[in-house]
Amino acid sequence: MIWIYDWVPDGPRGYVRYIRLRWACEKAGLDYDVKPVSFKDRGPDHIANQPIGQGPFLQDGDISIFESGPCLLHLARKSETLMPRDPKGEAEALEWTIAGLNTIEMVSVPWWVMGLSGTKDIPHEDWMVSRLGRLHAVLPVREWIAAIRFTVADIMMSNVLRMPKVLNATQKLRALRAYVDGTVALPAFKQAHANQKAHFAKADE
Amino acid sequence: MIWIYDWVPDGPRGYVRYIRLRWACEKAGLDYDVKPVSFKDRGPDHIANQPIGQGPFLQDGDISIFESGPCLLHLARKSETLMPRDPKGEAEALEWTIAGLNTIEMVSVPWWVMGLSGTKDIPHEDWMVSRLGRLHAVLPVREWIAAIRFTVADIMMSNVLRMPKVLNATQKLRALRAYVDGTVALPAFKQAHANQKAHFAKADE
Repeated sequence: MIWIYDWVPDGPRGYVRYIRLRWACEKAGLDYDVKPVSFKDRGPDHIANQPIGQGPFLQDGDISIFESGPCLLHLARKSETLMPRDPKGEAEALEWTIAGLNTIEMVSVPWWVMGLSGTKDIPHEDWMVSRLGRLHAVLPVREWIAAIRFTVADIMMSNVLRMPKVLNATQKLRALRAYVDGTVALPAFKQAHANQKAHFAKADE
Repeated sequence: MIWIYDWVPDGPRGYVRYIRLRWACEKAGLDYDVKPVSFKDRGPDHIANQPIGQGPFLQDGDISIFESGPCLLHLARKSETLMPRDPKGEAEALEWTIAGLNTIEMVSVPWWVMGLSGTKDIPHEDWMVSRLGRLHAVLPVREWIAAIRFTVADIMMSNVLRMPKVLNATQKLRALRAYVDGTVALPAFKQAHANQKAHFAKADE
């Protein structure tokens, strides 16, 4: 059971992070259901499951888990499609999943939040561009980010890179753009993306 | 084998992230050795193990893994001291370890990097304060952040909070300060902290 916002503004539709969970479930053929939680009024039930008051969180039997990263790693335990079972492949998928969060998203989210809110001369633009450049340098020799195959790390990394790409921070990074294009062309992403668009469109009716 | 910088400027000494790994190894009684990698000249060997050019990374047999989060989770597999083995406790320790990285550090690192570089009116100060407040709200009813016991999530969360605390962003958050004080009073942290100070002091000789 994946809990997601019932509504978000137009801008982020198609980019809300729960798409990562839906992509993983679609890709691995895991049964899942989606339930809405209020975006505008984050009540005690929400805080009890997600103390920071964000989305998504998921429930799996008596386990409740929040944040897209831990949720993805939890789902990855259920399916070898998402995470190799050999220790080396597993370590690679783990490190690149978290690198998406803590190396790239740590600098890209403050960058785009500030950019979209109209801030000029965003202080960490150089910092982000430098990290994207380092990441770009490893991509020409690999089709997937970890373990020489599709893993949960591609779901995370591709998804983290979509915002810098659509906001034109990756123009000089051809291999990086090709990597994102390749991953978002996969059927499970398309399905998850269409579902997210439809979910929020329905909220407007 | 933990690879760490051979030198860093005075300011961050005692705060460099590899302290998280050392704390985990000390706490769990895992054998480890530390080797230096050049801070000023990050060569091809470094990039081969850590493509983003940061520290720390670790080697464990034929597994090489980078970033403090994945390294901690890798070490946590080796010892129940660091991570409970029941699925619910494991999910909690996992989510709070990554929440340290992606909920708190994502806003706190850009905040303190900018603050220390002299930027005025840091745009994400409110964002960080709001998240620290949410975290603070869960602390009065728990001694440890996850699973009603010490876990790897306390190593991560305490460590992530040390910078906002020392830079006076937590003055109104008494339970949060008490949580950090309690965790850094633990012998394994003290040992890891003393080791880090000594390691960098030796580099000056």
